[in-house]
Amino acid sequence: VLSAVKNARELGIADFILCGDKEKIKVLLEEIGDSQGNYDIRHSAGYEEAANAAARLVTDKDALTIMKGRIQTGTLLKILLKDEYSFKTGKTMSLSGVFEIPDFPRLLIVSDPGMVPYPTLEQKVDIINNAVIVASAIGIEIPKTGILASVETVNLKMQATMDAAVLSKMADRGQIKGTILDGPFALDNVVSEESAKHKGIISPVAGKADIVIVPDIDAGNLLYKALIFLARAKVATTILGGGVPIILTSRADSEESKLYSIALNVLLSGVKK
Amino acid sequence: VLSAVKNARELGIADFILCGDKEKIKVLLEEIGDSQGNYDIRHSAGYEEAANAAARLVTDKDALTIMKGRIQTGTLLKILLKDEYSFKTGKTMSLSGVFEIPDFPRLLIVSDPGMVPYPTLEQKVDIINNAVIVASAIGIEIPKTGILASVETVNLKMQATMDAAVLSKMADRGQIKGTILDGPFALDNVVSEESAKHKGIISPVAGKADIVIVPDIDAGNLLYKALIFLARAKVATTILGGGVPIILTSRADSEESKLYSIALNVLLSGVKK
Repeated sequence: VLSAVKNARELGIADFILCGDKEKIKVLLEEIGDSQGNYDIRHSAGYEEAANAAARLVTDKDALTIMKGRIQTGTLLKILLKDEYSFKTGKTMSLSGVFEIPDFPRLLIVSDPGMVPYPTLEQKVDIINNAVIVASAIGIEIPKTGILASVETVNLKMQATMDAAVLSKMADRGQIKGTILDGPFALDNVVSEESAKHKGIISPVAGKADIVIVPDIDAGNLLYKALIFLARAKVATTILGGGVPIILTSRADSEESKLYSIALNVLLSGVKK
Repeated sequence: VLSAVKNARELGIADFILCGDKEKIKVLLEEIGDSQGNYDIRHSAGYEEAANAAARLVTDKDALTIMKGRIQTGTLLKILLKDEYSFKTGKTMSLSGVFEIPDFPRLLIVSDPGMVPYPTLEQKVDIINNAVIVASAIGIEIPKTGILASVETVNLKMQATMDAAVLSKMADRGQIKGTILDGPFALDNVVSEESAKHKGIISPVAGKADIVIVPDIDAGNLLYKALIFLARAKVATTILGGGVPIILTSRADSEESKLYSIALNVLLSGVKK
């Protein structure tokens, strides 16, 4: 994380306030050829104190986004969501990944591959709204959203296809705004115009999705991992739904991906340096 | 389909008996620069008669595999499964895809991305057994099988992880044979040794899976389509579980994929020309 932070700082993407054990931070910064003089460091005795310090910074508007270090995700979220801080909104928090895929002609936003495991329809609406905000931040004014299932027809034995039908009609009736939305689709129907044509699908989203909404974490995590590990895609992620966008990258994410996630969250927090 | 058939014939992979309307077949063969003299053509007045003819060929051991043409999958299967033919076995029929993924160091077998939508554990055992047969046909003696979920830990709120734990223990106790099997895993844990190391996973399957078993069709179809359309993988597919392996490629499959599927099914039917 600190290597990504150093890169982002040197590229002029963001300034950072580091919350944690000052001595340990100093040692880590030296290890990567950086120095404590480049940061505003707020000493905290442990992970929980550090998370509280970060939550306070955000509440006081001294910071506009939070990035997780080594603290457990659950611990961080529990502290952020305390009543005394401004982070809690009551809305669904969801993960969006923005993928750059070799030879694919545009960025593809995938949500939610990891935050809400088995979303209800109500949560799926929030997930869509959050993904539309991400699209807007990266310059896509009216994104096209495909609701994914395993087929493009409504199958009354497949919940994912029925959820997609419901969300689709909600968009038709103006209950989901800011995106051209359709579903159900199999993935190929929204990423390949040829495939959509083969199936005879007439839809503004056919072959042209900017956003794809996955049925659940089992499907979403497979897509996410296949894109990174088998399609050699690059990704930036963000969690929206709280008072500020947050970055919860994991150890398995590359340093490059962490840097991209910082850049995405800076865009999302409205800070364009 | 006929173009793939022509290629397979010219490459010496298989001989073909064509069941269908003789006049139409003749016209189609001429269109692709082939001739009826190269085939044993059994005239049938319609799709159903053609399917019955194919089922009879297999029952009489005059053919060792069946490839679907324009007939609907449901119609073909219903006819194949009639009591008067030898195709019906009572076992679960499942789809396996053998993927060649650019820059990935081995073939990866994915099952079941489309035949059994939401398999029970009993069906998952059959799905694994079928995939192990596919591995054997392509020369992998003791394949490594990873049962996929979205995480590598057993999560009591995630059915896919519990199914994986059960299957894993069944393999430990010798109830699933012919493969080194473990799960649950996220996809990266079994395709990337680095990722497995990051997570501290100790398993003979970590980073080394030959076979991955997906939780359900929603997840499996996404993986399948992501590999083909975004990772530019090539695939050969087969349906095992009936009396003979069958090829049910769809219009959206490339001609190359159809050819590979023929080759795979020839291997599976024990005919090595």
